Amino acid sequence: MSEGQSDELRVAVLGVGKMGSFHVDSLTRRTRGARVSVVSDCSDEQAHRVADPVGARVVAEPAEAVTADDVDAVVIASPGTAHESQILACLEAGKPVLCEKPLTTEAATAAAVYRRETALGRRLVQVGFMRRFDHEYAALQQMIAGGELGAPLMLHCTHRNPAVPEFFDSEYMIRDSVVHEADSARFLLGEEIAAVSVVRGRPTAAAPAGVSDPMLVLFEAASGALVTIEIFVRTGIAYEVRTEVVAEHGSAIIGLDQNVVAKRVGGTWGGTITPDFVARFGQAYDDQMQRWADAARRGIATGGDAVDGPGTWDGYAAAAICEAGVAAVVKGERIETGMEDPSGASGATGDRSGASGATGDDS
Amino acid sequence: MSEGQSDELRVAVLGVGKMGSFHVDSLTRRTRGARVSVVSDCSDEQAHRVADPVGARVVAEPAEAVTADDVDAVVIASPGTAHESQILACLEAGKPVLCEKPLTTEAATAAAVYRRETALGRRLVQVGFMRRFDHEYAALQQMIAGGELGAPLMLHCTHRNPAVPEFFDSEYMIRDSVVHEADSARFLLGEEIAAVSVVRGRPTAAAPAGVSDPMLVLFEAASGALVTIEIFVRTGIAYEVRTEVVAEHGSAIIGLDQNVVAKRVGGTWGGTITPDFVARFGQAYDDQMQRWADAARRGIATGGDAVDGPGTWDGYAAAAICEAGVAAVVKGERIETGMEDPSGASGATGDRSGASGATGDDS
Amino acid sequence: MSEGQSDELRVAVLGVGKMGSFHVDSLTRRTRGARVSVVSDCSDEQAHRVADPVGARVVAEPAEAVTADDVDAVVIASPGTAHESQILACLEAGKPVLCEKPLTTEAATAAAVYRRETALGRRLVQVGFMRRFDHEYAALQQMIAGGELGAPLMLHCTHRNPAVPEFFDSEYMIRDSVVHEADSARFLLGEEIAAVSVVRGRPTAAAPAGVSDPMLVLFEAASGALVTIEIFVRTGIAYEVRTEVVAEHGSAIIGLDQNVVAKRVGGTWGGTITPDFVARFGQAYDDQMQRWADAARRGIATGGDAVDGPGTWDGYAAAAICEAGVAAVVKGERIETGMEDPSGASGATGDRSGASGATGDDS
Amino acid sequence: MSEGQSDELRVAVLGVGKMGSFHVDSLTRRTRGARVSVVSDCSDEQAHRVADPVGARVVAEPAEAVTADDVDAVVIASPGTAHESQILACLEAGKPVLCEKPLTTEAATAAAVYRRETALGRRLVQVGFMRRFDHEYAALQQMIAGGELGAPLMLHCTHRNPAVPEFFDSEYMIRDSVVHEADSARFLLGEEIAAVSVVRGRPTAAAPAGVSDPMLVLFEAASGALVTIEIFVRTGIAYEVRTEVVAEHGSAIIGLDQNVVAKRVGGTWGGTITPDFVARFGQAYDDQMQRWADAARRGIATGGDAVDGPGTWDGYAAAAICEAGVAAVVKGERIETGMEDPSGASGATGDRSGASGATGDDS
Repeated sequence: MSEGQSDELRVAVLGVGKMGSFHVDSLTRRTRGARVSVVSDCSDEQAHRVADPVGARVVAEPAEAVTADDVDAVVIASPGTAHESQILACLEAGKPVLCEKPLTTEAATAAAVYRRETALGRRLVQVGFMRRFDHEYAALQQMIAGGELGAPLMLHCTHRNPAVPEFFDSEYMIRDSVVHEADSARFLLGEEIAAVSVVRGRPTAAAPAGVSDPMLVLFEAASGALVTIEIFVRTGIAYEVRTEVVAEHGSAIIGLDQNVVAKRVGGTWGGTITPDFVARFGQAYDDQMQRWADAARRGIATGGDAVDGPGTWDGYAAAAICEAGVAAVVKGERIETGMEDPSGASGATGDRSGASGATGDDS
Repeated sequence: MSEGQSDELRVAVLGVGKMGSFHVDSLTRRTRGARVSVVSDCSDEQAHRVADPVGARVVAEPAEAVTADDVDAVVIASPGTAHESQILACLEAGKPVLCEKPLTTEAATAAAVYRRETALGRRLVQVGFMRRFDHEYAALQQMIAGGELGAPLMLHCTHRNPAVPEFFDSEYMIRDSVVHEADSARFLLGEEIAAVSVVRGRPTAAAPAGVSDPMLVLFEAASGALVTIEIFVRTGIAYEVRTEVVAEHGSAIIGLDQNVVAKRVGGTWGGTITPDFVARFGQAYDDQMQRWADAARRGIATGGDAVDGPGTWDGYAAAAICEAGVAAVVKGERIETGMEDPSGASGATGDRSGASGATGDDS
Repeated sequence: MSEGQSDELRVAVLGVGKMGSFHVDSLTRRTRGARVSVVSDCSDEQAHRVADPVGARVVAEPAEAVTADDVDAVVIASPGTAHESQILACLEAGKPVLCEKPLTTEAATAAAVYRRETALGRRLVQVGFMRRFDHEYAALQQMIAGGELGAPLMLHCTHRNPAVPEFFDSEYMIRDSVVHEADSARFLLGEEIAAVSVVRGRPTAAAPAGVSDPMLVLFEAASGALVTIEIFVRTGIAYEVRTEVVAEHGSAIIGLDQNVVAKRVGGTWGGTITPDFVARFGQAYDDQMQRWADAARRGIATGGDAVDGPGTWDGYAAAAICEAGVAAVVKGERIETGMEDPSGASGATGDRSGASGATGDDS
Repeated sequence: MSEGQSDELRVAVLGVGKMGSFHVDSLTRRTRGARVSVVSDCSDEQAHRVADPVGARVVAEPAEAVTADDVDAVVIASPGTAHESQILACLEAGKPVLCEKPLTTEAATAAAVYRRETALGRRLVQVGFMRRFDHEYAALQQMIAGGELGAPLMLHCTHRNPAVPEFFDSEYMIRDSVVHEADSARFLLGEEIAAVSVVRGRPTAAAPAGVSDPMLVLFEAASGALVTIEIFVRTGIAYEVRTEVVAEHGSAIIGLDQNVVAKRVGGTWGGTITPDFVARFGQAYDDQMQRWADAARRGIATGGDAVDGPGTWDGYAAAAICEAGVAAVVKGERIETGMEDPSGASGATGDRSGASGATGDDS
């Protein structure tokens, strides 16, 4: 069957809040060869608000959606605490999954998911670290992997949000924001993170009492390469994500600005900064979805792997790093990630992860 | 019928050389809600090479492809000389068309197409001036139209190709390259071009004898605003397209570079320039296709307009400007475009063209 | 006598308005080995206001200042109409001169000055085209002259002032602003300008009636290389001077912005643009003065040339170009500069001009 | 006596290696109102090589040079270990000093120098932290001090050298390179540094065994603001110095590149990076010298302070920070600087230091 003639992938979307709705829109309007057939959400009203305009049916129970006959594959955008059981149900049903980060909320459960999939002998779970599909990150990763810069020695990451809800405390900043830098660092360096430290400095006046915003997070990679992360989520400015790699023979930087028009008015030059993650990473989200949908259709057709991007090992690694990061915030000391291969296998990273590949295993 | 459930638009692609193949790829892999059902090309072998992998059938006669039952809409990527009859066949059959530039090869025939569509009372023909769908051009147009810069006084356009075939002479440079600047200038200024001059300077050693490469082209807009165009198609460097508007209260520039990674090695900083038009405008081509496919499906469903972008008037205007440009090259003098409303209507530009809209009539 | 021990160059400054005062300040506070000994100005009050704080004496008659015993060299910053007689007096007295542009106000008188100095057999007159001492222009000139870009084919110049006095009409824009581009073009291209055209476009609402601001000026160099100049002196923005050379094997640009701090606040990135010519070219003015003072001291000590920068031929060439430019504005047609070697000599440009040197003959 | 008429400041330069020779050149060719009268160096040959061309005499003993009748002021560019006794001799003689960093090699002796000058009741010693005179640093300091960015929370410093001699080990990197960042951080933040940590990561292959190049240095300011410093002295690339301040209402960055010409050739854009500290900071060195010479002449004329820039307190503070930094490197732990006012005074920073001023006390 040619790609052009194949039937559409029928997708169930579990959880249609902000991210889930975005995925429904991407599947409906910008992804070829896939459509949303089923929507499930804890709010029946919200489920219908999203499902009805795209002709999908609403199913109350996620487990029922996973096993439904008109569902070929599943996008999980429910709260992180629900991920583990939903992913396991998908593995049980043998259906491809694209799961929003985090894979699960603890390193131990993430490792369990990884082991379950490994036992299955077939990769079905992709984790939504969509930065790997951003043209800038992909080009930087290729430049590093291509060797022209030599061995990476330091990685400087800047992650700034204009504003976040009140509940975004220091731990949440690790789990929700630094998690992206954790995967980016692994993707760019092509190796694992061995230890995490956090330095709390002077907080902005906009931070709630006791919240260290901004913070400086330090990763130590297995090779000794250092990763510095400025995480600042109440800048009042815009959405700014910048990464610089410093290597033995050169350095390279992405994200200095994402502005398309440079303007000169009234004695000034400059422009607007991209306001939010959709404006910054919309292309990456859509490309992630198209490539996942294509991989899912291939996996279904062949009975083989159904992933084109970061997988369960990457989800586990990010969970382990964030767990260490939260401990580092709380205790104020350096914490080792203690990451082990939970399957007991001694294989190299490249065997189980998309971390060293361009943007995934299949590419 | 919801958008998510609708049947796919079945598209015939006429001409599957470089551009036509690109459109087939876009329709097959990156456009939702459309697929290629029929391919037609003067080379039967080339037609099959493109059609077979996507499950489309090959039809030898373009006219037959246009009227086929399994064809809802048509993409025209055949040589410019074939456009007029193919478009008229589509209008006859009442089928939406996305036609690569030029609309037709002479202003007179382009005007005839415009009159025919106007008589039909329904807009069915979109012209492939895809720059209007590029994020940078769209943002600049919005900035100008929004009024924050004041009235535009000058527009400086730079159009550089790394290399072109031998037959690219001074006239061809106008018809094939400056034609994009003609539409961009109309789109950005929101008004018509009244006159064209060309200054031939010192040619590059890489230019064939008698070919003035680079050239300086000057447009005078109806308001008196000036447009300078550096057209240089044998730079040996990369694909560089840059536009600066100078207005009463400010200036703005796009296209300074399209590089995503800034690198520092061996005493230098910098990066690579985008090598070709696909790397530079790939997003614009794909967005054009998706928006046209959506508009075509809407037009078919409603029996109304089936265009979301520049139309026949824009195609006519570009043809008139290029005709004047070629005369200016040949005669070495200022030539007025003599553009008139060929329908005899006295309506404002906004009534018949996408020139003053964001990226088209329907947006 | 070693450089460190030499006596200071005693300088008479003729005319101490805005530019003359600036030169007095440069000589007094930032130039080593020179000091202002005499000041002359048509306003006795202004002369004392500038002379007294620096311990210089005031002399009413410029001619008397030129021949005074305590004057080794002369800086001329008087109105352009006074230049011819003052320069001739200096040549008569055998004293080195740094003369603000224009050399004289007509090409014919400038040619006469050039012939007089040539007859003297010793170069004593330097013209204040200080851009040649700007690091950016100097680097660009070296890059072009070094040959790595290949033969220059086009030069794009942008010259924008935030505001000018009411009397700045279209002709004045040529004589006072475009004159800098005339010298820059000759300096960068290393050849003479053969013809000038001017295209008047839509004027800004801030321009007085009848004044074409902005204008597009076009130079044709002897080799056929084209120079486009956007001259816009009422932008309301800042002082913006930008130059791009387009050559056979590459292009290069200077002056994209002169801002030292890139700032991000409230959703925007950018900074301030340099507000005026002092902020933009202060370094060039001071370096010009230091190098001229050093050359003047050397010339006095050796009895040889006393110039390190553009000379009388460069002053004549600029006058001839501006005369053609003014005629082009008035008549609306292309005007040839008709530049000839007024001395009747057949020597190459390099023999009589700093145009093809780095920043002057002696460097 | 007016500034223009005053006698020249006769300067003794102690130590004429690389930096001392540079200062002699600056005093001789680019500083107005000062000249080198005496040179002293441990190598008589080197002393003559530098002194003879500028007409200075050579004195073998630094102490003798300090007290010589033809010496009004002293520039110290001898090895750091010689600074203490030379400065004290100058204080004894009541002569103004511009001393290259470090003030002295230990915090204790630096404190002693500070106390001695304080007891004298007259500021005579300026320390050569010339970055305060760089236009970019000065503009950034003014932007921060002006309050438009709000309170500074983080400062990110990048300090990269292309290459250094073999003896540049981890401690030397702190003392010789990070010392500049120590003063820059105090200057920009306007407060003292309380603690220093160093993280050793993966070293470049170009680093000698046991040398941690690059390193990550972390300063904690008194307010809690954090300073991250990437110090990397064997990059093989160029001289790169970059500083970004992240504050409550905005961020700002300097030093992204110092390149004046942006070039496009063969598919790439970019340019050269400034190769060394002279190319990067030459203007700052010369401005420092001119302002110090002016201040020294004023101080001599009035019997008052003779400093226009960072003073002994700033020299002490840098010494204390570097001492903590070296301990942090050796012990691998966070070290408090334990900086106290060695005079026992309780005055605010502003009373004794240029740290909170624009570029010095007198400006």
